[in-house]
Amino acid sequence: MSSTLSRTTTATKIERLRRLMESRGLDAIVVSSYQNVSYFGGTTVMTQVNLPDRLGFLIARRDGAATLLFCNIEISQVRTQTDIEDIREYVEFAQDPTAELAKLLRKLGLSGASVGLDARRLPAASMATLQAELPGLEVVPIDDEIELAQSVKEPGEIETLERAAKATLAALEDGIKRLPPGCTERQASSRIYLNLMEIGGMPLFMVFASGDRTMQAHPESLSVPMLRGTIWRIDFGARFAGGINSDLARTGVVGEPTAEQEATLKALRATQDAGFKAIEPGRPAKEVFFAVRDEFKRQGLPFSMPHIGHGMGIGLHEFPMLQPACDIRLEVGMVLNIEPMTLLAERAEGYHTEDLAAVTEQGARLLTPPQERLLIIPG
Amino acid sequence: MSSTLSRTTTATKIERLRRLMESRGLDAIVVSSYQNVSYFGGTTVMTQVNLPDRLGFLIARRDGAATLLFCNIEISQVRTQTDIEDIREYVEFAQDPTAELAKLLRKLGLSGASVGLDARRLPAASMATLQAELPGLEVVPIDDEIELAQSVKEPGEIETLERAAKATLAALEDGIKRLPPGCTERQASSRIYLNLMEIGGMPLFMVFASGDRTMQAHPESLSVPMLRGTIWRIDFGARFAGGINSDLARTGVVGEPTAEQEATLKALRATQDAGFKAIEPGRPAKEVFFAVRDEFKRQGLPFSMPHIGHGMGIGLHEFPMLQPACDIRLEVGMVLNIEPMTLLAERAEGYHTEDLAAVTEQGARLLTPPQERLLIIPG
Repeated sequence: MSSTLSRTTTATKIERLRRLMESRGLDAIVVSSYQNVSYFGGTTVMTQVNLPDRLGFLIARRDGAATLLFCNIEISQVRTQTDIEDIREYVEFAQDPTAELAKLLRKLGLSGASVGLDARRLPAASMATLQAELPGLEVVPIDDEIELAQSVKEPGEIETLERAAKATLAALEDGIKRLPPGCTERQASSRIYLNLMEIGGMPLFMVFASGDRTMQAHPESLSVPMLRGTIWRIDFGARFAGGINSDLARTGVVGEPTAEQEATLKALRATQDAGFKAIEPGRPAKEVFFAVRDEFKRQGLPFSMPHIGHGMGIGLHEFPMLQPACDIRLEVGMVLNIEPMTLLAERAEGYHTEDLAAVTEQGARLLTPPQERLLIIPG
Repeated sequence: MSSTLSRTTTATKIERLRRLMESRGLDAIVVSSYQNVSYFGGTTVMTQVNLPDRLGFLIARRDGAATLLFCNIEISQVRTQTDIEDIREYVEFAQDPTAELAKLLRKLGLSGASVGLDARRLPAASMATLQAELPGLEVVPIDDEIELAQSVKEPGEIETLERAAKATLAALEDGIKRLPPGCTERQASSRIYLNLMEIGGMPLFMVFASGDRTMQAHPESLSVPMLRGTIWRIDFGARFAGGINSDLARTGVVGEPTAEQEATLKALRATQDAGFKAIEPGRPAKEVFFAVRDEFKRQGLPFSMPHIGHGMGIGLHEFPMLQPACDIRLEVGMVLNIEPMTLLAERAEGYHTEDLAAVTEQGARLLTPPQERLLIIPG
């Protein structure tokens, strides 16, 4: 699972953009987000996330040619990551990245072209620059189509997603075995994160809490002891080779669980199973949402989730989102997390569990084994 | 350094925005980026970074009133973080966040107002929604002013930045002492990251490489052994209480350094000292850049940096950027990283060192002690 220095082959991904240009009558597509540039351009430039002014762009054209534009600082690294040969650079502060993009589009003969864009990611200031520099450019927001073009994974991507998910689960299960009784939340989450790094993941996010803070959406671990009998929950992920992410949630208890606590997990797991069972090619994504929601009702669990899962890949919440308005039909090769969560106000306990499944002709193929019991941290 | 549950006082920060409205003749300011909402709104909502469609907004008005708008999932947590009482919510997928922002602006009597925005962060699609929903709204991009309003830190913020920076250095210095001879890059970086988490930091970024990969900008650790005699370098940071970040770089060697390697570090440190010496209130930021660049020449070191340092806070590269076009005058209370880096192609070695300084009446006050020798990992 450790990173390697082999370069990513981008041809099949650029072909997805080319087909999208054909279907939408576009001359080119320009993407700017970390997720979109990484996916189609075969890069992993983390400063796209950490330094949002240091913009990076991928330009794909109707003839299948692709060009990357990055800050000069990043270029030597980008060349080790991608097989795209045409890599242009701008000098930070001396040049405006979007003005350089406009110049490049002009050089490529695209100043009067019809260009698809990720307008939910491109900064408004960049859009203004593009329109000022290239008044003849026709700009077409195609965010959903760009997302959708990433939703069906190639076999190699599914393998990487599966390895990443299994490694993440192993980091958790092994990590809690090594914890001393009476440890703090922070000690527990740090041990799990260390395991994850040793196994090849780079830390991405870590929700960890015990007691009544399990009721919050994204609480982080504190240096407080975990009290016997209280529920804890974790929702965490890491970035693996090729920028592929993991995202896994589990609920546990400190010491021995009560019968009531185990029963709640069992009921929550029934809602997750209802989601897995609803997965079949051709079915709209929203039906998976409804299947889970309906099972919450049958199980008598409080339900307040706007979505119950999502596609996984280089992004954390990719298309299709398993939410009540999503009409995208499931396809073989999509990879989905199903993650029911329930918040029990009277007991001040939040339960959450999340596993990954690939869509196959036969329905869901689970890539991580869902939890059958509450996990136990010694109390 | 561990996170606490005390809520952030926002009054003095909102007052900075109010003064900005006065000076620019604005009725309100709306910010949307993780950095800007966190700073002025007293929140730390990490999904603003990880889930870019889940937008969050802060609206500050001329009378000093402030309103937050977040996805309903985040609200219970946001209430534990900020002392802003007026928190509105939208339901993800059922409602468009920016359309809800437009409705809220209308409710607040701002539909025909003049509103300052962070247009380098607001998505182009959101700008289009705002303009369609509120055609009478006058939108004024004021990114630089919003950044500048964060550049002078309050004493409490400087203390937090200093504690975070010192904790980060301690995590590194302690971490490398615990490494076994012949360890891998990944083991080294993981050990350092674990220390950082135990001391209260949440992993943010970790550049770590040995040998010729030190020549790349942002290489990540691999599961490869570190060879005796080779240079390694680290550039890493974490998020501490209140969202305050750390960012520290060091260069070291595996086993004993050569005289030539120590001499290179010494020369690099001279360039960093030239930067510290150039720090004084009233001086344009670019002069610090020129002081460092000129010292590179005197020391005979290759120089190719577009900037040699930057402001620190909730963002990683905050104003003032220490770059050749930055005319911002240094002020008491600014906190700056000075981070010279040199890439020696003939030796395939990259050296980088980075420390934090506060601007005082007397010049730079160092918040971390710069390195005097190459750090040593047992070889």
